[in-house]
Amino acid sequence: MSGPTIDLNSDLGEGFGIWRLGDDDALLQIVTSANVACGFHAGDPDTLRRVCTTAAERGVTIGAQVSYRDLAGFGRRAIDVPADTLANEVVYQIAALAGFARVAGTQVRYVKPHGALYHRVGSDETQAAAVVAAVRAYDPGLAVLGLPGSAWLRLAADAGLTTVAEAFADRGYTPAGTLVPRGRPGALITDPAEVAERVLRIATTGLVRAVDGSDVAVPARSVCVHGDSPGAVELAREIRTAVLDRGLELRAFA
Amino acid sequence: MSGPTIDLNSDLGEGFGIWRLGDDDALLQIVTSANVACGFHAGDPDTLRRVCTTAAERGVTIGAQVSYRDLAGFGRRAIDVPADTLANEVVYQIAALAGFARVAGTQVRYVKPHGALYHRVGSDETQAAAVVAAVRAYDPGLAVLGLPGSAWLRLAADAGLTTVAEAFADRGYTPAGTLVPRGRPGALITDPAEVAERVLRIATTGLVRAVDGSDVAVPARSVCVHGDSPGAVELAREIRTAVLDRGLELRAFA
Amino acid sequence: MSGPTIDLNSDLGEGFGIWRLGDDDALLQIVTSANVACGFHAGDPDTLRRVCTTAAERGVTIGAQVSYRDLAGFGRRAIDVPADTLANEVVYQIAALAGFARVAGTQVRYVKPHGALYHRVGSDETQAAAVVAAVRAYDPGLAVLGLPGSAWLRLAADAGLTTVAEAFADRGYTPAGTLVPRGRPGALITDPAEVAERVLRIATTGLVRAVDGSDVAVPARSVCVHGDSPGAVELAREIRTAVLDRGLELRAFA
Amino acid sequence: MSGPTIDLNSDLGEGFGIWRLGDDDALLQIVTSANVACGFHAGDPDTLRRVCTTAAERGVTIGAQVSYRDLAGFGRRAIDVPADTLANEVVYQIAALAGFARVAGTQVRYVKPHGALYHRVGSDETQAAAVVAAVRAYDPGLAVLGLPGSAWLRLAADAGLTTVAEAFADRGYTPAGTLVPRGRPGALITDPAEVAERVLRIATTGLVRAVDGSDVAVPARSVCVHGDSPGAVELAREIRTAVLDRGLELRAFA
Repeated sequence: MSGPTIDLNSDLGEGFGIWRLGDDDALLQIVTSANVACGFHAGDPDTLRRVCTTAAERGVTIGAQVSYRDLAGFGRRAIDVPADTLANEVVYQIAALAGFARVAGTQVRYVKPHGALYHRVGSDETQAAAVVAAVRAYDPGLAVLGLPGSAWLRLAADAGLTTVAEAFADRGYTPAGTLVPRGRPGALITDPAEVAERVLRIATTGLVRAVDGSDVAVPARSVCVHGDSPGAVELAREIRTAVLDRGLELRAFA
Repeated sequence: MSGPTIDLNSDLGEGFGIWRLGDDDALLQIVTSANVACGFHAGDPDTLRRVCTTAAERGVTIGAQVSYRDLAGFGRRAIDVPADTLANEVVYQIAALAGFARVAGTQVRYVKPHGALYHRVGSDETQAAAVVAAVRAYDPGLAVLGLPGSAWLRLAADAGLTTVAEAFADRGYTPAGTLVPRGRPGALITDPAEVAERVLRIATTGLVRAVDGSDVAVPARSVCVHGDSPGAVELAREIRTAVLDRGLELRAFA
Repeated sequence: MSGPTIDLNSDLGEGFGIWRLGDDDALLQIVTSANVACGFHAGDPDTLRRVCTTAAERGVTIGAQVSYRDLAGFGRRAIDVPADTLANEVVYQIAALAGFARVAGTQVRYVKPHGALYHRVGSDETQAAAVVAAVRAYDPGLAVLGLPGSAWLRLAADAGLTTVAEAFADRGYTPAGTLVPRGRPGALITDPAEVAERVLRIATTGLVRAVDGSDVAVPARSVCVHGDSPGAVELAREIRTAVLDRGLELRAFA
Repeated sequence: MSGPTIDLNSDLGEGFGIWRLGDDDALLQIVTSANVACGFHAGDPDTLRRVCTTAAERGVTIGAQVSYRDLAGFGRRAIDVPADTLANEVVYQIAALAGFARVAGTQVRYVKPHGALYHRVGSDETQAAAVVAAVRAYDPGLAVLGLPGSAWLRLAADAGLTTVAEAFADRGYTPAGTLVPRGRPGALITDPAEVAERVLRIATTGLVRAVDGSDVAVPARSVCVHGDSPGAVELAREIRTAVLDRGLELRAFA
């Protein structure tokens, strides 16, 4: 009989050329799923190679972190790309990453949109459908990772794809189950013990304590941790340790 | 018992965004092998999708036309890329194209370097070895297409890859078997009947008449035709017709 | 005593690398103002140099056709760029073009947004204000060219910049003074004589006949002609000839 | 009567988008000349604006750090760009930076090639002449900064440009006056006091102690300091302090 499990996912491979962002190597010792940048908002071929190789060595599952074509803006600006073009851009990114997964002896197992595309496919059905169509055309066996309640997950499920909801254990939730916007009171939870406690509760009950003290359902099989600063890596490591200490098993969803 | 065969290959998908170069649709009715640009010197996701779809419909074999990362220079400028980076850039390009081949229900079957990289790997063993390493790491079942006598084909053969030599039927050859440089007398052959005659002779005897009237060995299983101008497409079409009229069979090498 | 005058403006220098779009040389014999692409949606340094040199030789006024940073989409996709970044991107583009104008012995005299940015600054006050701020910071002596009634021209006027309204003589107008959307009846006027007649009327009366037969005010000092196809260049040439035949003087507004 | 003076120059503005490299703000409190990246190997419009604004506030002279077009390779790979194209790429970069200098109330005063271009124009006369031609065409009043004995400085002087030689105070010199290659004994000098002593000696005598103990002439008016790591910034700061303590005046050459 197996106990409760959770997946920890994080964005990786987000450097470009000479520039680095986050500590890929450290994170690959912490997470179970790696959202790897594919070259459109970040990620050059050397980085894709290195991250896939290390992920394969450590048994970390590889996902494609697909984005708008926007190196200068790190994929953080919404772009009104026509649906067909967006779908083709997503195929291009998944496939490019799949090449390095293949070289490393493994494969891409899921897709998670990045930045402005992540937000856009939360509610924009046209763009969400385009990304779903790209995933299905490329490989209907790929899972998709995203926000519960998003158009992205709903349309993916409608299309027969495996969907996985994620939670943000270091972010405050409103009673409606949405994230407290950054800058507002309760938006960030920085105490590792508290974050780990929330991860444990999400994994075992699917609930999280909202800012008003009420419980809200967050049916997540994966928790996103951040690693783009030294402090963030340390927090992620402490979450991992605390979660394991509480008897939760870390296991990739895909 | 089958008669002599030859492959016609051409560069395709070399537009970018709004810009077009050559008539992909016309060429896909002429050639048996399509060297498809992968996005580094030309080729955007929409173009890759369109070319792969049409190639699959028409039974044209798809090859990856890999290049230096150089949109502004169309891959025509040699770049001193470190070998590891070059190898990873080649994996990235093959894999991205493979995604669209897969979506179209087919696959990439060979690799041909483009432009300055094509010239460079003719003699630069470091860069040639890097491209060979990339092909082998990604898929040792891929054939490689290039100039007979090049470091590229030699190192690929040493690495156990299937190598295919190509000839340029509309270019003059020196007695040494090299191409007469553009601008020199005899560099270009523009009469379709003469070009077709040369293709036929290469296919049946492996010989071509050099500019000095001597015969030179050009052991090619593929002939490269160009399609980047209306006249070039027409010439390619006439070559195809004349070759078929002479009883030669057109068949992709891979 | 001088008679009525009008300016003809057109988009130029919209190739990139090996790719061409439109016939810059032909257009520079037709128009009085050249909206030169600055490298963000199109335009490489060689093209900027060539267009500026020819424009200077022929006395054609040079304007900066500024765009979102979007080569892959030719600047046709709206991007949610933060205002400060947009302003700096506009400074970058104007200044880069100004370098080639300077080398050619002349200077940039006006700014016209391109594509999706043109449409966006028609109504988006934040982005319009950002472009206005960029122009004013770089050189308040620059004129701005755009659609009458746009946020872009209004905010530019508020900021003390010289504003110039343009009309589209080959496009149908609604009674409200807006363009008939492409694809609708009356959207395009293809008869050169009729287009020239409209140009003449705009220049002398500031009125244009709308699709319903009523007259609508289009107070334009410049008329935009297109040159991105052989037919378009021919139409532009015929407009020029017809306009001159009717005694109208062609003169740059800046 | 004024004492000996020296200029300290450093590479700045070498981030791109979200990515940072070095501490621009710290360096702008240390150096007298800022070699500002112009967008081809690094540097986006926001960064150019910020660096030029701060440089102007602190009285730091702005120079254009021009490069091959190579974001992915940080300008560190030699590219066989045709001379005309290279010249136009250099005009583009200087001019773009000049826009931000202008907005900040100052101007670009010199040009220094970056990375692979810096090395290439040391001996490649075609590329050196192209960069010189670009500078002269854009503004013959610009100074050029580079290695003593380089083709770059020699051809610039022949063309009537003001040339300024630079030294690397933290690098070992061979008896021939060239830099000891990185990785060899004596290649790097890390003691701030020793580096400062070398700067002082260069400024007052034009001599530097080579690795074999002999004195070699290094007639430099500027010394390059690096700032791409926390340690490097600290070293630069200590050099500045030590140099000032010894009574040397820091003054931009342009």
